[in-house]
Amino acid sequence: MVGGGQGAYIGHIHRLAARLDGQWQLVAGAFDVDPERGRTFALSQGLDPARSYGTWQEMIAAEAARPDRVEAVAICTPNFTHYPIAKALIEAGFDVICEKPLTATLADAVALEQLARDSGRFVGVTYTYSGYPMVHEARVRVAAGEIGAVRTVQVEYPLEWMATAIEQQGNAQAVWRTDPVKNGRGGSIGDIGTHAYHLAGFVSGLTLDSLTADLATFVGGRALDDNAHVMLRYQGGARGLLWSSQVAIGNSNGVRLRVFGETGSVQWYQEQPNELILTPLEGRVQVIKRGAAGLSEDAQARTRTPPGHPEGYLEAFANLYAGFAEAIRARAEGREPDAIGRNLPTAWDGLKGVAFVEAVVDSAGATDQPWLRPVAV
Amino acid sequence: MVGGGQGAYIGHIHRLAARLDGQWQLVAGAFDVDPERGRTFALSQGLDPARSYGTWQEMIAAEAARPDRVEAVAICTPNFTHYPIAKALIEAGFDVICEKPLTATLADAVALEQLARDSGRFVGVTYTYSGYPMVHEARVRVAAGEIGAVRTVQVEYPLEWMATAIEQQGNAQAVWRTDPVKNGRGGSIGDIGTHAYHLAGFVSGLTLDSLTADLATFVGGRALDDNAHVMLRYQGGARGLLWSSQVAIGNSNGVRLRVFGETGSVQWYQEQPNELILTPLEGRVQVIKRGAAGLSEDAQARTRTPPGHPEGYLEAFANLYAGFAEAIRARAEGREPDAIGRNLPTAWDGLKGVAFVEAVVDSAGATDQPWLRPVAV
Amino acid sequence: MVGGGQGAYIGHIHRLAARLDGQWQLVAGAFDVDPERGRTFALSQGLDPARSYGTWQEMIAAEAARPDRVEAVAICTPNFTHYPIAKALIEAGFDVICEKPLTATLADAVALEQLARDSGRFVGVTYTYSGYPMVHEARVRVAAGEIGAVRTVQVEYPLEWMATAIEQQGNAQAVWRTDPVKNGRGGSIGDIGTHAYHLAGFVSGLTLDSLTADLATFVGGRALDDNAHVMLRYQGGARGLLWSSQVAIGNSNGVRLRVFGETGSVQWYQEQPNELILTPLEGRVQVIKRGAAGLSEDAQARTRTPPGHPEGYLEAFANLYAGFAEAIRARAEGREPDAIGRNLPTAWDGLKGVAFVEAVVDSAGATDQPWLRPVAV
Amino acid sequence: MVGGGQGAYIGHIHRLAARLDGQWQLVAGAFDVDPERGRTFALSQGLDPARSYGTWQEMIAAEAARPDRVEAVAICTPNFTHYPIAKALIEAGFDVICEKPLTATLADAVALEQLARDSGRFVGVTYTYSGYPMVHEARVRVAAGEIGAVRTVQVEYPLEWMATAIEQQGNAQAVWRTDPVKNGRGGSIGDIGTHAYHLAGFVSGLTLDSLTADLATFVGGRALDDNAHVMLRYQGGARGLLWSSQVAIGNSNGVRLRVFGETGSVQWYQEQPNELILTPLEGRVQVIKRGAAGLSEDAQARTRTPPGHPEGYLEAFANLYAGFAEAIRARAEGREPDAIGRNLPTAWDGLKGVAFVEAVVDSAGATDQPWLRPVAV
Repeated sequence: MVGGGQGAYIGHIHRLAARLDGQWQLVAGAFDVDPERGRTFALSQGLDPARSYGTWQEMIAAEAARPDRVEAVAICTPNFTHYPIAKALIEAGFDVICEKPLTATLADAVALEQLARDSGRFVGVTYTYSGYPMVHEARVRVAAGEIGAVRTVQVEYPLEWMATAIEQQGNAQAVWRTDPVKNGRGGSIGDIGTHAYHLAGFVSGLTLDSLTADLATFVGGRALDDNAHVMLRYQGGARGLLWSSQVAIGNSNGVRLRVFGETGSVQWYQEQPNELILTPLEGRVQVIKRGAAGLSEDAQARTRTPPGHPEGYLEAFANLYAGFAEAIRARAEGREPDAIGRNLPTAWDGLKGVAFVEAVVDSAGATDQPWLRPVAV
Repeated sequence: MVGGGQGAYIGHIHRLAARLDGQWQLVAGAFDVDPERGRTFALSQGLDPARSYGTWQEMIAAEAARPDRVEAVAICTPNFTHYPIAKALIEAGFDVICEKPLTATLADAVALEQLARDSGRFVGVTYTYSGYPMVHEARVRVAAGEIGAVRTVQVEYPLEWMATAIEQQGNAQAVWRTDPVKNGRGGSIGDIGTHAYHLAGFVSGLTLDSLTADLATFVGGRALDDNAHVMLRYQGGARGLLWSSQVAIGNSNGVRLRVFGETGSVQWYQEQPNELILTPLEGRVQVIKRGAAGLSEDAQARTRTPPGHPEGYLEAFANLYAGFAEAIRARAEGREPDAIGRNLPTAWDGLKGVAFVEAVVDSAGATDQPWLRPVAV
Repeated sequence: MVGGGQGAYIGHIHRLAARLDGQWQLVAGAFDVDPERGRTFALSQGLDPARSYGTWQEMIAAEAARPDRVEAVAICTPNFTHYPIAKALIEAGFDVICEKPLTATLADAVALEQLARDSGRFVGVTYTYSGYPMVHEARVRVAAGEIGAVRTVQVEYPLEWMATAIEQQGNAQAVWRTDPVKNGRGGSIGDIGTHAYHLAGFVSGLTLDSLTADLATFVGGRALDDNAHVMLRYQGGARGLLWSSQVAIGNSNGVRLRVFGETGSVQWYQEQPNELILTPLEGRVQVIKRGAAGLSEDAQARTRTPPGHPEGYLEAFANLYAGFAEAIRARAEGREPDAIGRNLPTAWDGLKGVAFVEAVVDSAGATDQPWLRPVAV
Repeated sequence: MVGGGQGAYIGHIHRLAARLDGQWQLVAGAFDVDPERGRTFALSQGLDPARSYGTWQEMIAAEAARPDRVEAVAICTPNFTHYPIAKALIEAGFDVICEKPLTATLADAVALEQLARDSGRFVGVTYTYSGYPMVHEARVRVAAGEIGAVRTVQVEYPLEWMATAIEQQGNAQAVWRTDPVKNGRGGSIGDIGTHAYHLAGFVSGLTLDSLTADLATFVGGRALDDNAHVMLRYQGGARGLLWSSQVAIGNSNGVRLRVFGETGSVQWYQEQPNELILTPLEGRVQVIKRGAAGLSEDAQARTRTPPGHPEGYLEAFANLYAGFAEAIRARAEGREPDAIGRNLPTAWDGLKGVAFVEAVVDSAGATDQPWLRPVAV
């Protein structure tokens, strides 16, 4: 693992998720920009001192030379370092698990996706919400035509934790997220809007045609958007509406997806992730529970406990890790992966996410954006 | 009452609402385009045969001549007839209660609003959702600064009943709503989006600056939009997102409003109208119940039963009728109206609604609307 | 109407409910124990001064002598007066609509029910919750075998408003409810537990066999129970659990019913009364909405608005009043009543309710009630 | 680990839970009554063949002799074997983590609890629901007087999976649960009612005084209750109502607890475990989210992710395992355990649970149980 040392949020999550199903073992890491702090942290995680590295460069060099070298490396560093680290890892022959966004710039994303393709290395991107079993259930049902041709998608990702200028009070998580260099050009749209975009496409099966967007920055002194509104047009005529916000007081992690088709709809809410709401045309609203009889192979493969025994965010994340393991194993064994190793977010999804964010920022900044004023308001 | 005869939906609602609080009595009406059917219906409602009119022209002429003439007339006819009827009523000196939209065209709306202003007649427009007590509670709290300066408003009005081409199977309600001449240029946006727009402005206290919109028609053969996405910019910098749909399977009448400010948020959902969700910054999500102690005068004036005894749509509608009665009484007595007679939707709101719909349709139809396509989708 | 004058809660509700559907007209009343106050109140309701009576005795005498005498009289006085008033009314040939409980004592209830039967007078008792359309829908479905033979019923009615000794601070509603003479022997069980008991029997179709109960009084100085737990055994082997409480902080009017059968269950919650939750065996939880297509005639007859347009407590109460009107009309016309005039709560239900409360109080007070203490607690 | 081999439900959960926080390592086991199947399973878990035992007796003998012997042993076998296995383990000097119920008979429970006390061995019992952080938050708040003296507790644990005679169709989980010898005398009350009883006491802080109960068996041919109603009297005057059911169609794992005090209430629902509902007297219903600022040390110690990132059943179970580890460590180091190592379910809780079940069965079977029949039903 690179990054994710003392005090890091997402690195801790990666480790918990990787451990849950017993398919990954953490054996080496360069956890911090401060080499000493990184080594100390590594030892606290029970790592072999010889594999507790000070820098990721050091780690790649040393691991590449070991017969028992690590199989894959998780990248949990700030966005702008994803590209050089991932590039070096791929070039040294390692598989990669990369936090989203894939990179901080579009050029990097294009290059990295190309490199991944050319090298044959596995590059997974942790679009977490696609790890949830009921999200897969939704995808399968939509793909099977259960709601008919999709007409409109409503997706949102509101948060509240940046409703005040916490980056000016030293909140480390907020500091890099509001710095265009470290984070990339998209604020809320890059940090969370990209999750929403991925989720919408994943479940609906739709491919974006074009978009028009409106970005706002509500907290004074902030350099990036903290609220984004995007209208989407999908290929084939479906439409979408996407909202991401870091200042939506009352929302902890309110990812919500609704997909409406010609003959039904599906609805999923991340804070109640064990339920999928399905409504057929002229029918009753139905609650499908994770673990229930009759669910798809895709959902079952991502389920550990019976209905009513809630699984959550860590289990979803662990599903991605279990899927990455299976995908890598299957490739090594020259076979098709099992259900859990299919439909995983990869470098291509990562590139799509970065391209989406770029387009949103470009659209919002376009000077020819026509805004009409009604005659009476 | 004009319109609202046998089989009519909204006319029946108007009568129930008017009766609930005992402040209105139905004494005359021209209920149908078919004079005979209208008279038959009038008799079925217990009306004096002498005041059971065949046409609204006949009714205005006869009532204007009576010493006990009706005080106000409710217009429950299809949209395109609102203007001529309202105009004639005002010119004959009657007060008017008009279904929304105020008119089917912007020119008519401008003219009618002007006429209302000049004549001094009362013209109420039944923006129903502003009759709900917890909507008033939300308005009062936002106005009092309880959530700070408003940053963004999310409002939606999804319905499912027109998800298939029911207008082609003879559903009368759907037939005129999908006819541009009878309905006006806005489909879902005119029928229900205008409610959402009014509600958002009513609670947030914001004035629209400008908008950009995307309309879609998903049901084949339909002449008007049945799904609308609108991005809003309010004066002062706040933003908004509005979605209306007549094809959103799973939604019966899903009006939902969320207003986010600098220090808190309010949230209201029409299918659970007795609750207002309030979340202060860094605080807990709180449920405020209709009828609870400590609510505003505005909410109390619109409440009949204690907390836990649900009031609903008819009571909200009745609140408008009680408010119109009080406004008319207060004008007659030369005093300020009581709480229930204040903050009512009038011709000005009606005009704003029509202007909003026109702008949405114009924006969506603009040829210079820039839609960006990301490099990877 | 007798009782329900200035400041009364339930009398006001009766008037609103009676008015909503335009089938009743309030033309006479003795509204207060204070004759002068009662007459003043009557005038405020727009009554003819000649029919604004000072006492109910006076009213019965005068009305009985009028050719246009009232058809039915609603009794909204404290419980202990129900019997003498109802008796006098029936003997004078009036139909009666009586607030629950039917009477304050079992002897009175037995006598009154007998009198009702012998006289042929209509005696309706306002078990409000059986006025809700989705309660009827539940009843019809259970009766049709949709959930199979019923196994267990969970019913509860928690309130919070008497969590402190408000009767000692002069709250008039609480004063008579905590007075055994005026209220009867059951506190929470008599005031609200009886509603729960009626609702459970109404929907499940079960007949009680026997019960065992535990009453508690948590507020100091209170003479009657304010919390009741009752275990029920129904004829045929089904079981039930009933909880009523006036001190359950957090509950406004939390009537909740769940009926479990061999092949499914139904669930209904009064604070969200427009939904019925139905779960078939090995199936999905389904939400059935009031007004939806395919509902029973019983539910449809009690519905005014389409799905998604909430109806509530007043509409449920109005359904009882409309039903009483239809039952009385049908009797006069010698025909079967329409759906709304069937399945109404009558004197027999009232007697059952009083008998239930008496049995609960007797059971809880029995000295041979065996309470086991585990060896370790 | 003893038990929990191929196809076992709870053993798998134990392993996932133990692994999540990296504080336990599975190194030895006797997983099956069939020695060969057990050894095969052990190897599938990556265990050293030398520590893949055929029987628990073999395991205890071998492990006791190793210098690197296991620290603690988890017992995941059917109830009636808990006692002999735990006894042997304690006598061999091992710490024990035992599935509930502690034992299948009261005599065994008394003996085991005594043995645990005398030996100084740690005996944890997996009352899972006390592992949830918001359950701890509720406990802390009630203990701190936030809802005042507790008045009544409503607790329920409904399930649906045994609504039909699945034990007659070979469902292994159902077979032993309906066998009085293997399971103990309590059916639903022993399997799940004991969880509800523990949870109620844990959060309320109350000690049971006595109870009276009604058991029913709804599925034909079943030897034990599948539905239990229990009225509770706590020391000091508080009351309780407990319902457990294995036949409540529509409920997956519906543990719900509500505790009402003099000045407030708390409410928790296992299928939405990240929220605690708190209502102060005359206040608003408030939602407290797991991970939010200001929560108790007890809740924080059991939390891995921020608010809005759902944790669930496995995380709660892992909290017990992390707590057991900390308690064992602290004992070894002669210090007080940290927060996560306090307030754990131990042998004493296990004994209380078994004693509760015995008392329920005795009460329900008592011939002098007085059931009153009302005069009209």
